[in-house]
Formats: sequence, structure tokens, C-alpha cells
Amino acid sequence: MFELHLNGPSSGNPFKDVVLTAVFTTNHRQVRVTGFYDGGGSYRIRFMPDTIGTWSYVTSSSSHDLNGHAGTFDCVAPITPGNHGPVGTAHQYHFEYADGTPYFPFGTTTYAYLFTGEDNAVASLAGMTQARFNKTRACVLPKPLGKGVQPLPFPTSGTGTDGRGGTNDYTRFNPVYFQTLEKRLLELQKANIEADLILFHPYDAWGYKSMPDEVDEFYLRYTIARLSAFRNVWWSIANEYDLVKAKTMSDWDDFFRVTQTEDPYSHLRSIHHSRVIYDHSKPWCTHASLQSYDFEKSTSRREAWNKPIIYDEIQYEGDVDRRWGNLSAEEMTRRFWLAIVNGVYATHGEVFISETGESSWSDAGRLRGDSGPRIAFLRALIERITKAGLNEVEGAYYLSAGMGDEVLLYYFDVHRPARYDFPLSVTANFSATLIDPFHMTTTTLPGTFTGKSRISLSNKPYQAVLFQKVSSAKGKATPSNESQVPSNEP
Amino acid sequence: MFELHLNGPSSGNPFKDVVLTAVFTTNHRQVRVTGFYDGGGSYRIRFMPDTIGTWSYVTSSSSHDLNGHAGTFDCVAPITPGNHGPVGTAHQYHFEYADGTPYFPFGTTTYAYLFTGEDNAVASLAGMTQARFNKTRACVLPKPLGKGVQPLPFPTSGTGTDGRGGTNDYTRFNPVYFQTLEKRLLELQKANIEADLILFHPYDAWGYKSMPDEVDEFYLRYTIARLSAFRNVWWSIANEYDLVKAKTMSDWDDFFRVTQTEDPYSHLRSIHHSRVIYDHSKPWCTHASLQSYDFEKSTSRREAWNKPIIYDEIQYEGDVDRRWGNLSAEEMTRRFWLAIVNGVYATHGEVFISETGESSWSDAGRLRGDSGPRIAFLRALIERITKAGLNEVEGAYYLSAGMGDEVLLYYFDVHRPARYDFPLSVTANFSATLIDPFHMTTTTLPGTFTGKSRISLSNKPYQAVLFQKVSSAKGKATPSNESQVPSNEP
Repeated sequence: MFELHLNGPSSGNPFKDVVLTAVFTTNHRQVRVTGFYDGGGSYRIRFMPDTIGTWSYVTSSSSHDLNGHAGTFDCVAPITPGNHGPVGTAHQYHFEYADGTPYFPFGTTTYAYLFTGEDNAVASLAGMTQARFNKTRACVLPKPLGKGVQPLPFPTSGTGTDGRGGTNDYTRFNPVYFQTLEKRLLELQKANIEADLILFHPYDAWGYKSMPDEVDEFYLRYTIARLSAFRNVWWSIANEYDLVKAKTMSDWDDFFRVTQTEDPYSHLRSIHHSRVIYDHSKPWCTHASLQSYDFEKSTSRREAWNKPIIYDEIQYEGDVDRRWGNLSAEEMTRRFWLAIVNGVYATHGEVFISETGESSWSDAGRLRGDSGPRIAFLRALIERITKAGLNEVEGAYYLSAGMGDEVLLYYFDVHRPARYDFPLSVTANFSATLIDPFHMTTTTLPGTFTGKSRISLSNKPYQAVLFQKVSSAKGKATPSNESQVPSNEP
Repeated sequence: MFELHLNGPSSGNPFKDVVLTAVFTTNHRQVRVTGFYDGGGSYRIRFMPDTIGTWSYVTSSSSHDLNGHAGTFDCVAPITPGNHGPVGTAHQYHFEYADGTPYFPFGTTTYAYLFTGEDNAVASLAGMTQARFNKTRACVLPKPLGKGVQPLPFPTSGTGTDGRGGTNDYTRFNPVYFQTLEKRLLELQKANIEADLILFHPYDAWGYKSMPDEVDEFYLRYTIARLSAFRNVWWSIANEYDLVKAKTMSDWDDFFRVTQTEDPYSHLRSIHHSRVIYDHSKPWCTHASLQSYDFEKSTSRREAWNKPIIYDEIQYEGDVDRRWGNLSAEEMTRRFWLAIVNGVYATHGEVFISETGESSWSDAGRLRGDSGPRIAFLRALIERITKAGLNEVEGAYYLSAGMGDEVLLYYFDVHRPARYDFPLSVTANFSATLIDPFHMTTTTLPGTFTGKSRISLSNKPYQAVLFQKVSSAKGKATPSNESQVPSNEP
């Protein structure tokens, strides 16, 4: 990230009164970006170059002090090993980094991570790192936290319309609030964790869910100007958008369009629902962000939307009394595997009862559940066996996903056949590995397999079998689908 | 059962040529029943009286030898303790015996039980008794069994159109075949097991699934004449009717009507599907017999059909390679509980791989699985807590079923809240019992509970909680539904 710092006017309302942009140029390309006021007479313009070489820039502003600043800098190859650029969609239903490095989202949920206290943030990042999550869903605007949790700073001036007579001055942002966000965004970036930034949400005690229309857009433009040069940013237009009663579908569409227009880098854009699924075929959605665990609908949804799908809320591991918050680690692990063999991705969440006012993990706190290591085990497996991702095998008798002839992954869920005649391709020889997803064991069988291959399995449910191509085979490519067809009996 | 034995003509084809009926009379009531030819010049008329007292009868026949036989007998109160008469529907969505004794179907599947070899039948009955199943689904017409299993007798004369040049003489039945069925039916009756008799099915190697129309009806009338006086008979018109390609929907409707007309006792009538659900709102269906485990649709189906529902195939415990035949005992137990808290019933099945040609349980053989005792545990629980059956609590936040204010049974499935505020009625005081359905433990909590009651639960999934009314309470009957409404967050 290149950042240009300029000093300018601090009188009046610089957030509203001062226009500041810059054009960045390399060879024949020009990229126009918007700067922002950072308080105390400071202005910043941030830029994320995508091409190695010399860039020049020149500023334009309604303020004489800020206008016409020009300069050059060299964009060099990434120095930090984890820097592969921003994540985009790839291979129709999957993702990858800008430099072509595979990226498979195995994310979690820490809504308050960006604005919570330092202790919570440290604990939260430690948990994410330990469990190897590579994405987290986090709110930009504050949400109420547990009792005993310290009051938040506010993103705008004023004291919040919290029913105690306070007011929000929506014409002035609080730079300190955003500086905290940015510090945390960088911490995520250093840990190779993508930040799925939730721009609007219904969990609000101060009026941010029902700001006037022009304020919503004012806030959006400011946030995008500040944050879009962070390479690990994704835009989640809203969490549970359909629970934000003050907004209409056309508001959500507008926010997508503003985000698409204002973000020079086209970071990933999605919107997350509660009950009413957004029409993800709309062109500004880069992928679907669902709340559900009806993975059996994945295939028809992928075909309808032609985009990757992340099931971003599949209920939470935990023990609270709400239905969404008391899954066992076994069930959470199972849902991640079901997602993968259905060609989609899932997102973790956790919430345990706290008597002491301690923040739950999903607000940003300490990780207490047992699914984390199992999800990391699955992530490591996927990263080892494919560069592109796995697509579900349509019409397969047992749930399975693969990519070309290279790899085929079965997940048997509740089924526990003593043996199965796997209908492998006859054009390749495969290694076979038995996997216990919860106990995290792998057992590679001796020899190779091609065509219809009978393999004995354990008598346990929730087991997986992985086939990987080791060489070509001489079989003619007319595999029998016989064993794909269910018997009529009984 | 009263049985009148008469000798008559054995020349020609008595099955086809001789008409034999009788009218049984007590006081002002008359019941007309049909007799049947049992081979060797023997004719029988069976009658199941439903009223204590003196009955008289007189026969009518196209044969002079069989015509005009008259007599009387006394119908006395049941002598055997398990005899409560036939089972019928009751309480809208449930069942009971004719004498008003509660009957809750906890059945299993032994397709070949009626016509298999004696060793298999003995083993099968021992398993049913041990696991306390009180219903079994069994085919009247033969089905192919595993390799090494002895050839069957045939229900009709001839050698079967098995592709080896045999033929069926559909105009003559084989009395020995039916005598075996009846012996087995009586053995079930003695063990208090209802026989859900499958009249047609698609698993056939001898032409019985595609007999000419008039033969189907000929077979139906003969079977009903022979078997309807057994009090433990239910009629399942077909198994997987939609897989019997030679028959149309109007054939199935006809079979229902014939069965309804010919059976003087109106035994329970249902039809079992594979993929295409029969319209169970048709008036001749007494209850629905489903193949599925989508219990979440139970409520809408009960309301649409206004009848009891038995999920008669919910997949099988076992280890074969087909999806329907390799559930764990845990998953089978779970599905039974899901059925109960959705106000419906489920049926057990089991199939394990046999290398030796041994019959699987579901064909009639040895019971090897572990769900049997768990199903018996659930049956004993239901029999202890209700006389009518349980209906699902519509709109409940967690799955639960009850009957009036007397009893309320929760099943938490994958959910494992550390505690829950149960929204109990304020008009009663309840005892509370924690139940582990798989480990078959019950723990009754001290004290009683009324109104919103917080109870701590274990951290395990698949647990249940039972509330039973112990006394009336003084609360006003305006219970808050607050805790029934899911929180919006997150």
C-alpha cells in the first residue's frame, strides 16, 4: 500500500467540504482514487498498485493546499512471503489470490474484532491463527457487546442516539475509530486472514442501522476511501440485510453499485441474509454469502447464480439456548465436510455461555470450541490436493467432489457401508486414503486403484475417502455408471 | 376366530368354480363373509366376531354340499391377555386396539417372514420379541432371497415364469403356501405383533408383479377371505407401488376398493411408495405409510391428509453399500425420536452384509444391530407417559410433542444448549426428567416446574427432556410465548 500524507484545512467540516482525489499512472494505465480526511488537518490518499514498475501520481482537490501534489514511486515485488495480493473469484465457483496462488476460504466470525478492546482483539487473533482460519467476518459499524464490556468509541461524532438523549453528528467521522479498524485490518493481513467487512448490520443501539439515505452513502464512500487499499478487504454489504427494517431492496442494490464504483480494486462483494435470500445473480455480487446448511441445494444454486458460494452462517459451535448457537464440534466439522463435497465453502462461528460478561468468540474473544483443529485439518487437506478447488460430482451415489481426473473426495456422512465399489475413472490409477475427519487421521491404502474398485471401510459414520491420480491408466474412457444408479430394492 | 370347516367338491377348479359365503348374525346385526377352498375338498369360512354373545350363521354356496349349513356359537371375552382385538386409528393421528387399549406402532421390516424357512422364521420372531417390536411389514407374495436360500413354494400352481420355461397357473392357488403364512401370522399374533401385510410388491422373479388384471383381483379376494379374520392383520396394498411398472394409479385405487369391500372388519389400509407419494387423502387410506425421513414435513402432511402417519422406511441400520442400508444404531435411534416429536411413527429395518448367504433381518433372519433396545426404550417411555399418543407442538422453538397439559417431550437433536428456559404451562406443575435416548438413561430432577423454567442440560447432542403433569398450578392461563420466538441475532 502506498500512502500519501498531506496537510490541509481543518476549519469548517473537512469531511464534507473538501474533495480530494488522485490519479495514479503507470505506462498507459490510469487509476483514479479518492482521498479522505483523517482529522487534525491531515489528509491521506491510499493506493494499492497491482503492477510492478514506476507509478506517478498527481492530486486534485477543491482545497488549494491539497491540489496538484505530484510524485513517483516504484512498486516492487512483494517482500512479505504471505503477500499474494487481494483474493478474487476463479475457476467459476472458487477463489484465488491475484498472483494465482490458490485461496480456499476457511473462515470464522468475529463481528466486533475491529472495534473491540485490545485484550479481546489479541485473544481473538491468537485463536484465528491457532485454528488457521484465513477469513473472518467483522462489522465496520459497532454492535452492542455483552454486559461489562467497555463502551465503544463511535464512528461518527456525537454520543449516539442510545435512548439516553445522545445524538449522532453524521456529517463528521471519528478518525480514531477508523484508525483502530485499520490497525486491526493490518494485524489480520499479517496473519494472512481476509477481512470480510460487514458494512451494515441490524445489531445496533445507536441509530447506525437507520441513518438517512444520504448519510449511508456518505459513510460508504468514506469507508471505501479509507479501507479499499488494504489488500485483505472483502465487502459484505450487510449482515442479515432483511432484518434491517429501515432499508429497501433498492437501497441494498444502490450500496452494491456505490461500492462497485468507488472501490478501484474490485474487492469481493456479497450480502448476507437472514431468511430472504438476495438475488445473487445480480451482476455486482461476486459470490453468495448464505445463512443456512441446506448444502443439498448447492448445485442448483451454483448453476442459477454461476458464482462461488460461501455458507457464511451454518449455526455456531457452542452451548447457548438459541438454536443457532449450540452445535457440537462433531456437527460443525460435519457441516464443513458437507460444504466441501457439495462444491461450496463454509464459515465457522462459536458462542458459549459466559457468566462473567466475557465476549463470546463470535463477537471477538477467546476460542473455546473443538472444531477449529478439525477445520484446519480439512483446509490443509484441500490445499494439499487441489490448486483450483473441488466441484461436486453431480448424480454421484454418495456425496463426492473432485476436479478433473486429479482428485476425488468422498464424504459418507451418516452412511457407513462396510465396503463400497467406487466407480473410479479407468483412465487413471489412483491412490486411496481413508480419512477420519473428526479424529483427524489418514490411512493411505497400499497399491493403486482404477475403474470400479472395491474398498473396505470402517463401521463408523462421518468418514471420508480420498482418491488422487498417481499415473495414467490404459482403460478406455467409457466408465460404467452402473454403481451410480441406486437399486430399487427395497 | 371362529372357523367353519366343510367338505365339498374337489373336481374341476374349486378356486374358480365354487362360490361360498356365510352370514353371521347376532341380535339385529348381520355380517357377510366369504369362504375359501383350502385344497383336498376342504372349504373354510373364518369369522372374527367383535361382540360378546351368541352368534348364528348360515352358509350359501353354488355347491349343494356347501349350501345351507347353519349353527350357533358363543363369542366370549378374550382369554389370552394380549388379545385386545384389531388395531384401528384413534385420536385423529394415532392408533389403538378395538378394546380401547393404546397401541403405538414401533415396528420393523421382515419382508420374507411369512414364507421363509422355519429356522429363519424362528430367529426372526426371537429378534422381534427381544426388541419388543409390535408390528412388522411382511410380503404375502414371495420375493427372491439371498443366494443359498432354499427355493420357495409358490402361492399359485405352476412352476413360476422365472425365465426357465416355467409357468404360473393363476387360476389355482397353492393352499400349502397360504397355510404357512397363516401359521406365521398366528405366531406373530401370539407375540402381540401386528402383521402389516404387503399385498403387491416389485421384487419378483416369477411374474407375480405383472399378473393380468383379473388375476390380481382373484388373488386379492382369495387372500382377504383367508386372512382377514386374523385380528393382527393390516393391509399394505403395495410396497414401492410406483416401481411396479405393470400397474397404473387406477389399479392401485381399485385394489384399495376391493380390499375395503371384501374385508368385513376394515383392517387398516395403506400403500407404500418409493418416490411418488400416493395421495393419502383418498378415503380408503386409513393412514400414510411413507418412505422418507423428512420429518419436518410431518405437520403439513398430517394436516393435508388428516390421518396418522407411519414413516415405514427411514433407511436401515446396517453396513451394505446402498445408501438406504448402512445407518448406525445412533442414527436409527435419532430418527425414531425425530418421528415421535413430530407426532408421527417410524419403522425399523436392518441389513448387514452376509458372505454366507444368510438372510438379512429385513428379509427375515437374525437381528444384529444395536438400535433395537433403544427403540424398545422409546416405546416403553411412550407407553408409560400417554394413552393417546403425542402431537408435535407447532411453532415450538425446539422440537417437542405433547398431549394436552399432561405431558411434553423435547428432543434436542444436534442442539446442546447448556441450559434452556422451557416455556411450560403455568396451569400445571410438572416433573422433569432428563433422558439420554441412546444410552437409555433417565434422570428425574428434584422438585416440580411451572411456567418459564430454566433447566441445565448436558453438553451432549441427541438428548431429550420429559415433563409430566403432577398437579394443577394456580397460574393464569396466559403463558408468555416469549422464549418461543427466535432472537434475530446474529
